[in-house]
Amino acid sequence: MTKTIIVGSIAFDAIETPFEKTDKIIGGAGTYICFSSSYFTKPHAIAVVGGDFPQEYISKLQNCGVNTEGLQIKEQEKTFFWSGKYFDNMNTRETLVTELNVLEHFDPIVPDSYQGADYLMLGNLSPIVQRSVIERLAVRPKLIVMDTMNFWMDILLEELHKTIALVDVISINDEEARQLSGEYSIPKAAKKIMSMGPRYVIIKKGEHGALLFYKDEVFYAPALPLDTVVDPTGAGDTFAGGFIGYIAQQDMCDFETMKTALIVGSAMASFTVQQMGTKGIELLSKQEIADRIDAFRKLTSYSL
Amino acid sequence: MTKTIIVGSIAFDAIETPFEKTDKIIGGAGTYICFSSSYFTKPHAIAVVGGDFPQEYISKLQNCGVNTEGLQIKEQEKTFFWSGKYFDNMNTRETLVTELNVLEHFDPIVPDSYQGADYLMLGNLSPIVQRSVIERLAVRPKLIVMDTMNFWMDILLEELHKTIALVDVISINDEEARQLSGEYSIPKAAKKIMSMGPRYVIIKKGEHGALLFYKDEVFYAPALPLDTVVDPTGAGDTFAGGFIGYIAQQDMCDFETMKTALIVGSAMASFTVQQMGTKGIELLSKQEIADRIDAFRKLTSYSL
Repeated sequence: MTKTIIVGSIAFDAIETPFEKTDKIIGGAGTYICFSSSYFTKPHAIAVVGGDFPQEYISKLQNCGVNTEGLQIKEQEKTFFWSGKYFDNMNTRETLVTELNVLEHFDPIVPDSYQGADYLMLGNLSPIVQRSVIERLAVRPKLIVMDTMNFWMDILLEELHKTIALVDVISINDEEARQLSGEYSIPKAAKKIMSMGPRYVIIKKGEHGALLFYKDEVFYAPALPLDTVVDPTGAGDTFAGGFIGYIAQQDMCDFETMKTALIVGSAMASFTVQQMGTKGIELLSKQEIADRIDAFRKLTSYSL
Repeated sequence: MTKTIIVGSIAFDAIETPFEKTDKIIGGAGTYICFSSSYFTKPHAIAVVGGDFPQEYISKLQNCGVNTEGLQIKEQEKTFFWSGKYFDNMNTRETLVTELNVLEHFDPIVPDSYQGADYLMLGNLSPIVQRSVIERLAVRPKLIVMDTMNFWMDILLEELHKTIALVDVISINDEEARQLSGEYSIPKAAKKIMSMGPRYVIIKKGEHGALLFYKDEVFYAPALPLDTVVDPTGAGDTFAGGFIGYIAQQDMCDFETMKTALIVGSAMASFTVQQMGTKGIELLSKQEIADRIDAFRKLTSYSL
């Protein structure tokens, strides 16, 4: 089996929607990516939590096959905490609380057993932290995928550019692609971002799906129209987890494989938004995943 | 060859974008639908213009194979005129002028030669006018498709409902579907609209493509990501023209055919937005259309 390193926050979330409200539950980009990719590969997590993080949550990840050797536990510190509130139709949200805590001085450790990993997924984190993991790997993985967000464009743009220059695939949303490139047109934005380094650019459009750009080619994975969206938190991270997971499972990283990986990522994300927090992707059967992927196949199939 | 009736405004448009500005040019929903469908079927236009409408424009339609026997010319009156201005990124527009003129008392005439038509496309017009055409056909066509807009929901909702109850397919945009159904979720909105009469509901999402709902099934035709959008005017009408045109060409109206028709409609619309007004769809070669449809095929093709 291929080895995949997942770098990303493992944290507490508290989520409020017009219909439901959670206490502090397990969250963070790394958590969603690990759960989602665990159906396809062996995730090797790199993250940090505080002494307040329940062993029960760590066991949850381990039970899904996640290697947590790279998870640092800072007993004297507190876990990263994010709290947010969604309005109306889940299309807008407000961040209520962000407590960086252990993330403020996060210095990622790459355990020896992680060396030689085939695939590396850099979840949304400071570009400096993301880059330090790349630098600490003795051998470059076959494929490096990074996620990021506008926050880093606002405060650490130069560092972000240095990290972007090192990766094969970048995954960002449409507004962030516009901000990063200064281009409104999505194809133009994608081309400009390619010129910064990545050979592949994924542009996420939420309920409208995701686009994959490569050279002069483009692939469109629409999102499945759902009757009800319960909680959009972690959808992009779950997408990234399904994406890297499928690639690792196939152990191929050509454009054809990536297209299917985009569909698998979208399918996994569609489970996440149907329940609060990580609930929707913690206990899926192979059949449920296969059925969902088939629903995506039907969604765009036609005969000419 | 099958016979397709197109009901819709043939009119003057004046369009302003951040990059270009036109004088009074040929426009109107019926015009776009006729041009677009003319590549696949013989459009039989039902419309009205004033004495100020240039013969040159009518010839343009005729040269594309449009039967204009159902086009009334009110010599003493003026043609419908719309003027609009697009902002920034073409996603918002402001209507500058709407002069109803001949449309105010439009009483559609169905020429005898139009009777027995196989397909009927009702472009965006008053629901009373749309319904009167249905009532004036001696034999019900195999398929009736209607387009409409929020304007009619605001001022003639009851009449709109009466017309909707008579059609097989309705094509509206996402915001209008929400307004008409009172449901935010697009799948729920589609189901509610189906309960009003149409067996098929098409929901247009602009640059994000279009969805086709039928019973419990859904099909997603994404829009082609374009480097440049020059003028979005008439995109939805062009889409409708390609849709009805393909169905008429195949002379089939099952769900499978409609899915492909959605792609053909999207392909035709992608030509419209690349040039000002109707220019992009006036003189296409068969090869250009085939190539564009193939670009759509590639856009969502992947292997599992």
